[in-house]
Amino acid sequence: MHSDDVAGRARVVDTPELAAYYAALARHEAGALWTVANDIEPWEPTPHAVPMLWRYEALRPMVLQSLELVRPEDAGRRVVMLVNPKRRDVSAAVGWLYTGLQVMKPGEAASAHRHMASALRFIIEGSGAYTIVDGERLTLSANDFVITPNGTWHEHGIDGGGTSPCIWQDGLDIPLINALEANFYEVHPNLHQDIARPLNASHLAYANAALKPLEPDWRKPYSPLLKYSWDSTYEALRRYASATDGSPYDGVVMEYVNPVTGGAVMPTMGAQMQMLRAGEHTRAHRHTGNVVYHVAKGSGYSVIAGQRFDWKEHDIFCVPSWSWHEHVNTAPNDDACLFSFNDFPVMKSLAIYHEQAYLPNDGHQAYQATPR
Amino acid sequence: MHSDDVAGRARVVDTPELAAYYAALARHEAGALWTVANDIEPWEPTPHAVPMLWRYEALRPMVLQSLELVRPEDAGRRVVMLVNPKRRDVSAAVGWLYTGLQVMKPGEAASAHRHMASALRFIIEGSGAYTIVDGERLTLSANDFVITPNGTWHEHGIDGGGTSPCIWQDGLDIPLINALEANFYEVHPNLHQDIARPLNASHLAYANAALKPLEPDWRKPYSPLLKYSWDSTYEALRRYASATDGSPYDGVVMEYVNPVTGGAVMPTMGAQMQMLRAGEHTRAHRHTGNVVYHVAKGSGYSVIAGQRFDWKEHDIFCVPSWSWHEHVNTAPNDDACLFSFNDFPVMKSLAIYHEQAYLPNDGHQAYQATPR
Amino acid sequence: MHSDDVAGRARVVDTPELAAYYAALARHEAGALWTVANDIEPWEPTPHAVPMLWRYEALRPMVLQSLELVRPEDAGRRVVMLVNPKRRDVSAAVGWLYTGLQVMKPGEAASAHRHMASALRFIIEGSGAYTIVDGERLTLSANDFVITPNGTWHEHGIDGGGTSPCIWQDGLDIPLINALEANFYEVHPNLHQDIARPLNASHLAYANAALKPLEPDWRKPYSPLLKYSWDSTYEALRRYASATDGSPYDGVVMEYVNPVTGGAVMPTMGAQMQMLRAGEHTRAHRHTGNVVYHVAKGSGYSVIAGQRFDWKEHDIFCVPSWSWHEHVNTAPNDDACLFSFNDFPVMKSLAIYHEQAYLPNDGHQAYQATPR
Amino acid sequence: MHSDDVAGRARVVDTPELAAYYAALARHEAGALWTVANDIEPWEPTPHAVPMLWRYEALRPMVLQSLELVRPEDAGRRVVMLVNPKRRDVSAAVGWLYTGLQVMKPGEAASAHRHMASALRFIIEGSGAYTIVDGERLTLSANDFVITPNGTWHEHGIDGGGTSPCIWQDGLDIPLINALEANFYEVHPNLHQDIARPLNASHLAYANAALKPLEPDWRKPYSPLLKYSWDSTYEALRRYASATDGSPYDGVVMEYVNPVTGGAVMPTMGAQMQMLRAGEHTRAHRHTGNVVYHVAKGSGYSVIAGQRFDWKEHDIFCVPSWSWHEHVNTAPNDDACLFSFNDFPVMKSLAIYHEQAYLPNDGHQAYQATPR
Repeated sequence: MHSDDVAGRARVVDTPELAAYYAALARHEAGALWTVANDIEPWEPTPHAVPMLWRYEALRPMVLQSLELVRPEDAGRRVVMLVNPKRRDVSAAVGWLYTGLQVMKPGEAASAHRHMASALRFIIEGSGAYTIVDGERLTLSANDFVITPNGTWHEHGIDGGGTSPCIWQDGLDIPLINALEANFYEVHPNLHQDIARPLNASHLAYANAALKPLEPDWRKPYSPLLKYSWDSTYEALRRYASATDGSPYDGVVMEYVNPVTGGAVMPTMGAQMQMLRAGEHTRAHRHTGNVVYHVAKGSGYSVIAGQRFDWKEHDIFCVPSWSWHEHVNTAPNDDACLFSFNDFPVMKSLAIYHEQAYLPNDGHQAYQATPR
Repeated sequence: MHSDDVAGRARVVDTPELAAYYAALARHEAGALWTVANDIEPWEPTPHAVPMLWRYEALRPMVLQSLELVRPEDAGRRVVMLVNPKRRDVSAAVGWLYTGLQVMKPGEAASAHRHMASALRFIIEGSGAYTIVDGERLTLSANDFVITPNGTWHEHGIDGGGTSPCIWQDGLDIPLINALEANFYEVHPNLHQDIARPLNASHLAYANAALKPLEPDWRKPYSPLLKYSWDSTYEALRRYASATDGSPYDGVVMEYVNPVTGGAVMPTMGAQMQMLRAGEHTRAHRHTGNVVYHVAKGSGYSVIAGQRFDWKEHDIFCVPSWSWHEHVNTAPNDDACLFSFNDFPVMKSLAIYHEQAYLPNDGHQAYQATPR
Repeated sequence: MHSDDVAGRARVVDTPELAAYYAALARHEAGALWTVANDIEPWEPTPHAVPMLWRYEALRPMVLQSLELVRPEDAGRRVVMLVNPKRRDVSAAVGWLYTGLQVMKPGEAASAHRHMASALRFIIEGSGAYTIVDGERLTLSANDFVITPNGTWHEHGIDGGGTSPCIWQDGLDIPLINALEANFYEVHPNLHQDIARPLNASHLAYANAALKPLEPDWRKPYSPLLKYSWDSTYEALRRYASATDGSPYDGVVMEYVNPVTGGAVMPTMGAQMQMLRAGEHTRAHRHTGNVVYHVAKGSGYSVIAGQRFDWKEHDIFCVPSWSWHEHVNTAPNDDACLFSFNDFPVMKSLAIYHEQAYLPNDGHQAYQATPR
Repeated sequence: MHSDDVAGRARVVDTPELAAYYAALARHEAGALWTVANDIEPWEPTPHAVPMLWRYEALRPMVLQSLELVRPEDAGRRVVMLVNPKRRDVSAAVGWLYTGLQVMKPGEAASAHRHMASALRFIIEGSGAYTIVDGERLTLSANDFVITPNGTWHEHGIDGGGTSPCIWQDGLDIPLINALEANFYEVHPNLHQDIARPLNASHLAYANAALKPLEPDWRKPYSPLLKYSWDSTYEALRRYASATDGSPYDGVVMEYVNPVTGGAVMPTMGAQMQMLRAGEHTRAHRHTGNVVYHVAKGSGYSVIAGQRFDWKEHDIFCVPSWSWHEHVNTAPNDDACLFSFNDFPVMKSLAIYHEQAYLPNDGHQAYQATPR
């Protein structure tokens, strides 16, 4: 698209003198900028990751298989990571975001730890799951969204009464925090936390519309609300849908927020839930920042960087930075809901969020058939 | 309590020379600070307003009587103001806060206006009431709380179908904005606004627990959410009550917040709803800042500056700045709920909020019988 | 200008029934809004204060006279207050701002105190003056600007070596903090503070262009920098003057700021220094908020609400809220500098700052001769 | 230090079943977390980069040699990059920070461009250098610090009158912005900007101690002040030194700030200047975040991760994330000054800044002889 053979770009032709010069520079742990300038100052971002979709029906049996293959006390956690073929080196699903499917059996309780990385969970199936975060036990149901922010002690478990395993999706910024060389890890000295607060305390206190407890000021950099329930989220989408035309790119879309600031739930990762109305086909746009989607409800497809990805409930797919993407709900009579988490808070804190609408063809990309 | 006959206070004795000096200063529109210093630099605040309680059963007939006495087109609005006997000069109920009871008949529609003062309403009785704020029509029910922030066009009315009048409480910062000489007033050029947004649009979009519409950034200094419903407010109190011990001074207390900032609903007035659990008797404290209370549910009494005020549903009372106060729910089996609005955002913006616990007698004031 | 005989304003005609009704309301500490509505909801602000100018040459002898008339241990401080004829009841010079001229003799040292009110000083004449704020001693010279924020222990004195008294202007928000019923006052238990920091410590640390000490975060609501020197202020104006056309209303104008936030020096009062270039005649504008000016350098006149006020060095004048004002430097070859302090931080925190340009006659008011 | 053979860490032993399972997962672009968990969740950060020092006397001749070897119209810019041996893949000096030495001849003028990356310059030698940023021309002298924030048009040049080349150090976040896949690049359509503001306008307006122009609000995410002069910086350090004990880790240290917020100069990079007093030997500490130092004045050595690096004027060295470091000024009678830039704003925005003091041996590391 852009030529580098223009004024303002590096166009130095190799010569023997230059080769000698480059070798001399290398001996001083130095180099000539013009040999790499066009590469490190690209006209626009070219993401390393490729668009991907992981089918839940394919992965679920493999996730369950791990129950037989490893013990939690050996594996730490039984998690099938979803790895982008171009980001294997950093164990990322897209950009610097990690995601995986974790499974536990009734009666199991993993040990408590904390790390500088931030984590979130989106519950897929099973009952009796809970997370304990900084002494607060949270009960979890399908499509609930939970955060375990950086620095918080956390541990997961499943009540003993049930019969079927629980599966949820984990999302973490581990690749980013590792890339930034700022990750720390600690195992809880007692392996498990004492319960220090009422059950679901933060949810009871903070998951209330436009009302805030008059408690001492919360000064931590993440949300005091740790669990966002599917019931109230879906109800919110339906209410908002009746009062908005929606975004041309995302349909009826809401951000999960820190209720004491109105900002992102954590400093490094944001989360959204969007409703595509029956038959809705959004327009394409692209932006810096990476997104991992989880199909919370319904079926349809997304066109990402010119590739069509068909999805149904619990499928997971990703949109790399600066990739055109549009979404389609193929159901004629029912809505579809996409949960997603992203690194937009990073992009916005660093003032490098940038967005562009796709203008040709009424906003719709030409696309190839779904990859298999 | 404090003597002014100490070092650091003014203790100048009048003399003939000084009298002549003061007269000379006065001719230059000047004065000697030491003649007023102890008065204008008090040891602690002494509020002008006195604690007051206005009984709804006494005022209601007089409010209804206004329906017969004046026409809305002459009166602008039919409002019975509640006037503190010590703040008559500024038409305030307490401090620089105004409050009144407004009444309208089914089918009436007042004209639209806007002002630099900020306003709020707490609905008492009747059905079919609505407010239109900046083109959005909001439907109102008993115990709903609505804001009409400074600078917004607003108008009130009652649908034509009903048979009984509607009464609500208005709260405004008019005395403050007048004192600060910053009030402006405009009648809408067409007397009524066009409806520009879906019914209850801001409520549908913003009254959702910890979820925010992904709309363009809201930059105005007040909440985009204009109506706070009683149903969800009472539910929030009950949920929060199950996860907190409550405040020793206020029971289970929540602040109505701007959902996009977590801050006060308007820059000059905040609002709270508090639940006093069955039989609860809070401890006394005092703070700078003034509060107007409305009994949303139940009955009990408050002790304010050593006076007992018995209250029941829809009674209105006030606590002046730096006055000790404690609340009692006398019902053995039911909760009581107090709505209140205040000028705390002013105190906090100006860094003059100050609070003190009452320590003697386990936090309970001795008190006089209820004034009649 | 505006008629109240229009829809949307109160136009109720008195009747015997209404008179009886009003009397009944009064017995319930209530009233009818429509009897006061037009007064308390004015079309625009009408300030209580009148524009004033206090001539230094007239006041200076009276200030010095106080040295003979009262002892500091009796008067607390020897201060001639400048009192607006329409604000005598609140001891204000304009709006809710207090100002006065204070004098001390060499060797005198006033006792330390603190209050919820905020204070500032602008040094006029004499040498050897100092202020001690929270343990830091600050040395003061002519045209230096010093703050003693709310809650800080502070005391003033003059070194013993000199021969002539020192005079400075005090500015305080005492009337405002009293009006808001939030003033507290404390005499220092030892009457004088111990020196706890190096001389001029905050000035050495924080009065540096665009460089901040890497100290623990400053979280107090006011500037850590306590003294703003005239030398660097005047130099800043001259530098800025070479890079700006200046404001049409204020010439080359800069705000004294809190260096760790870029905001106002204190939450209730801001301060500015403006340079009127040789012969400059600004255009008139008006705004909510009140201003007290001190002529730091030069001579000229200001037209305020249609009155001309001629000024020269050390004269003090005021502009009430919402009053048209424009400034003229009558010197053909020299600049004039006006120091001023204001309540704009209050107006802005409360979202009631409002500004308007004067459009007729190229922005210049017709005016009456200077009042004498 | 930490063993991974503990509860809470992954300790799964390979088996044939697991090998088959891992192969199956790989076919689904998935993997087992426990195979990488200990690697991607390290106990603490282990930086990729190694500590480095680049000697100016060694590099200067090679920088000057580039004047003969390449033409600016071919090379874009003649820059010798300083490349960390362990960060060659991303052209970084340390972490995700790039630095290089740029040279231009009198009369040369590079073309204008802009990019999403942010840049800064620290001037080393020569006269007549200038930068034009968004239409403002800034003149530059030795040890001046200049920013060209993300998105601003900028171009560099040297006035024609001089005889010797100019050399300066560039610092950019290019590696970070590339890693975050958010870099954009644009050549100015006219190759050069028109001058739209007075010479050094932002410096004249904003480089003033605690005084801010009363201009319309600056809302961009970076400092409006573009140049920070050495003269006023050194003066600030000397003034601050007289009022502080200094930091145990950094001596007398100040941060270059955005004067309208008191925050970092740009959202991704901060900058500091620190003075080590004669003979000062600081204590060691470590923190997340990377730093590139430039010796602005004096000589001494730093111990970084147990290695001693001797430095003198214009040497450049780096401290990788979470590496112990301490600094020594070996001059008995003169101060030494270290300029540095860092990625602390990233660490702090993302809430992953973490710091630790070195406690053994009075805070001083044992060290190896200087690497050559």
